[in-house]
Amino acid sequence: MHPIAAPPFALLAETAHTNIPLAMLIVFASAKLMAELFERMGQPGLVGEILAGVLIGPSVLHWIAPSDFLTALSDLGAMFLLFRVGLEVKSSELLKLGGTATLVAVCGVIVPFLAGWGILLAWGASANESIFVGAAMVATSVGITAQVLSAKGLLQATASQIILAAAVVDDVLGLLVLAVVSGLSRGQLNIAELALTGILACGFTVVIAKWGAQAMGKVVPRVTRSLRVGEAQFAMAMCLMFALSVGAVYTGVAAIVGAFLAGLALAETTEARVRDLAHGATELLLPFFLAGIGLHVDLTVFSSPRTMLLAAVVLVAAVVSKFAGCGLGALRLGKADALRVGVGMIPRGEVGMVVAQIGLGFGIIEQSVYGVVVFMSVATTLVAPPLINFAFRGLAPAGREEKEDFRLG
Amino acid sequence: MHPIAAPPFALLAETAHTNIPLAMLIVFASAKLMAELFERMGQPGLVGEILAGVLIGPSVLHWIAPSDFLTALSDLGAMFLLFRVGLEVKSSELLKLGGTATLVAVCGVIVPFLAGWGILLAWGASANESIFVGAAMVATSVGITAQVLSAKGLLQATASQIILAAAVVDDVLGLLVLAVVSGLSRGQLNIAELALTGILACGFTVVIAKWGAQAMGKVVPRVTRSLRVGEAQFAMAMCLMFALSVGAVYTGVAAIVGAFLAGLALAETTEARVRDLAHGATELLLPFFLAGIGLHVDLTVFSSPRTMLLAAVVLVAAVVSKFAGCGLGALRLGKADALRVGVGMIPRGEVGMVVAQIGLGFGIIEQSVYGVVVFMSVATTLVAPPLINFAFRGLAPAGREEKEDFRLG
Repeated sequence: MHPIAAPPFALLAETAHTNIPLAMLIVFASAKLMAELFERMGQPGLVGEILAGVLIGPSVLHWIAPSDFLTALSDLGAMFLLFRVGLEVKSSELLKLGGTATLVAVCGVIVPFLAGWGILLAWGASANESIFVGAAMVATSVGITAQVLSAKGLLQATASQIILAAAVVDDVLGLLVLAVVSGLSRGQLNIAELALTGILACGFTVVIAKWGAQAMGKVVPRVTRSLRVGEAQFAMAMCLMFALSVGAVYTGVAAIVGAFLAGLALAETTEARVRDLAHGATELLLPFFLAGIGLHVDLTVFSSPRTMLLAAVVLVAAVVSKFAGCGLGALRLGKADALRVGVGMIPRGEVGMVVAQIGLGFGIIEQSVYGVVVFMSVATTLVAPPLINFAFRGLAPAGREEKEDFRLG
Repeated sequence: MHPIAAPPFALLAETAHTNIPLAMLIVFASAKLMAELFERMGQPGLVGEILAGVLIGPSVLHWIAPSDFLTALSDLGAMFLLFRVGLEVKSSELLKLGGTATLVAVCGVIVPFLAGWGILLAWGASANESIFVGAAMVATSVGITAQVLSAKGLLQATASQIILAAAVVDDVLGLLVLAVVSGLSRGQLNIAELALTGILACGFTVVIAKWGAQAMGKVVPRVTRSLRVGEAQFAMAMCLMFALSVGAVYTGVAAIVGAFLAGLALAETTEARVRDLAHGATELLLPFFLAGIGLHVDLTVFSSPRTMLLAAVVLVAAVVSKFAGCGLGALRLGKADALRVGVGMIPRGEVGMVVAQIGLGFGIIEQSVYGVVVFMSVATTLVAPPLINFAFRGLAPAGREEKEDFRLG
């Protein structure tokens, strides 16, 4: 209904804000194109999709800038990804691995924090800035690893389950670290509030993980029988996913943890039809999550050699410290699985960026250091997939048909 | 990662802007709940979903206000709906009905325009305001009818195909009417520009409808064979849908027409797998389109009895004039099909609102009249589904399995 002349290409970024189909086309098509290119070069497709975001974003081609709409699609994409992963996992088996997973998560928080903190102090940053960068290096973004393992049909492997469980614990720990760091930097640390936050987050996660599947086992068949609305089971699954994501946000953990817990709760009762429908929504939204990660990269901060050096050191430290910390925590599973867990926890993704953003908002970390943290977050997601492929190369997928359904990205 | 305390309920509308899962939960769950309620009362579920939007919106509960994000999801929902409808239709058969469909569309534009124009003049509105309201009564929103017919498995009926083809022609005519009206109200009417707009819009639509399916018949099998990325055919279908939607916007017609044309082009080559995946995305997004319609209702404009009277008269005129105009145009198909086509073209949906918004932006129509047009647009979508159910009650669905797949909303 709007008679608009086609704009010159440079205007794309602005029109894409108002022109939804154009924004969708640019992000989706470029992500899929890069995925195809990377698959043909024998590389993981999702690395291509992340790089597509870098390419079309403010750093290189300026076609698209991060917008509220794209960020929302990206958040939804991450939620659907983790929901689908949850559907593939039995919560009872996940809970059995709780001890090891907690050890992995704790070591994987301490070592990277110390590494980031130490490097920034050595670089001459203030105590507060160093603490914030340390905190930004803590949180694992499990989406990338989950997608790689899902595509290989390896979500049922012990190492995969440890990674998933550890990532959930890691999210709770990350929440606490952020709360402590924010408090410290403002010179006020409310221990009671901190304890309450921790208890709420742990309580929510453990209760849903432990009794969610049982409750859904009773609720789903009954509700499905009595509902008259079309695709009732899918509608119910979506409502549960959104509701638990909301619950997660209000208890302090990330929305994707809620979506993962919803998947877990429905894993044993959900029909193939619902999986297919959820899969369709995921296929639509996932490129927005992956390209969305790349979209945040801003290469202009690397104008000085000093910043470039810092970025390189931080990246290496981020990879090595997470690998060493988590691998150490998983050593009781044997060397091969410790290696797998170590590389699986490397990606930082969007979580590190959020911490850095808060630090930036407080005026505690400067723009160039923020750029370094964003670079580290994105670069770890690019480095991890080939390493995961290498570490998991010996394992056979759980079921061949499962694999066909999930060879994505 | 954000330790936020749960807000009091009145704050929901504001937090829902930033809290994506909360906005998703409120809209999706309330839409599905109302759909279930309406199905149980023997009413069409999608009427419940539209009313859910009215209920949670600024008119009644104030839980959610229309936002950019929700509008974008609503647009996407309409695109996926029309894409899926296009997948069910053979373009060759649609083109055969072109003559009748054009007659239906033309009559369905002239009669409502005259009705709206006359009523507003009689009400004492200015000439320009009357013309704008006439123009806002012109455009049929085919989404609602398509959804009802799709749910009943009746998309292959002659009347359904006439409705779909007429709605496309109607969109082109609506574009021209809007261009003329906008020009007239500013005292400048560029005939050459107008002709170009018309030719571009017609050309785009006819070319894709006529040769799209043929081209895809050659391209899809070849591309599917050579692509390595996962779910390649789905990715291709999405790219085509977004690309044709962009093309539609740039040639002047609505994005949903482009999505419909993409569906048409792929109707004969698309695998069941791709339909299932697209269906999943549609199921997720459709409630946002339906509730999104209701979300725009603002009942506060009906403070004066005079405005309420105008609203009632305009609504009756909108229903009767479209029914009479389109029914008349379809009379050569026999009385029964003319009746079906007449009721199928009644819903105005979002298109009338867009015209009214432009009039509001130009300062040509006043706030209360804008409210009346919005009310008319929403109310026609609520009135139509029971009438469509009644008019189509004698017809048997084309295929039972098809119906099972599409008993929605």
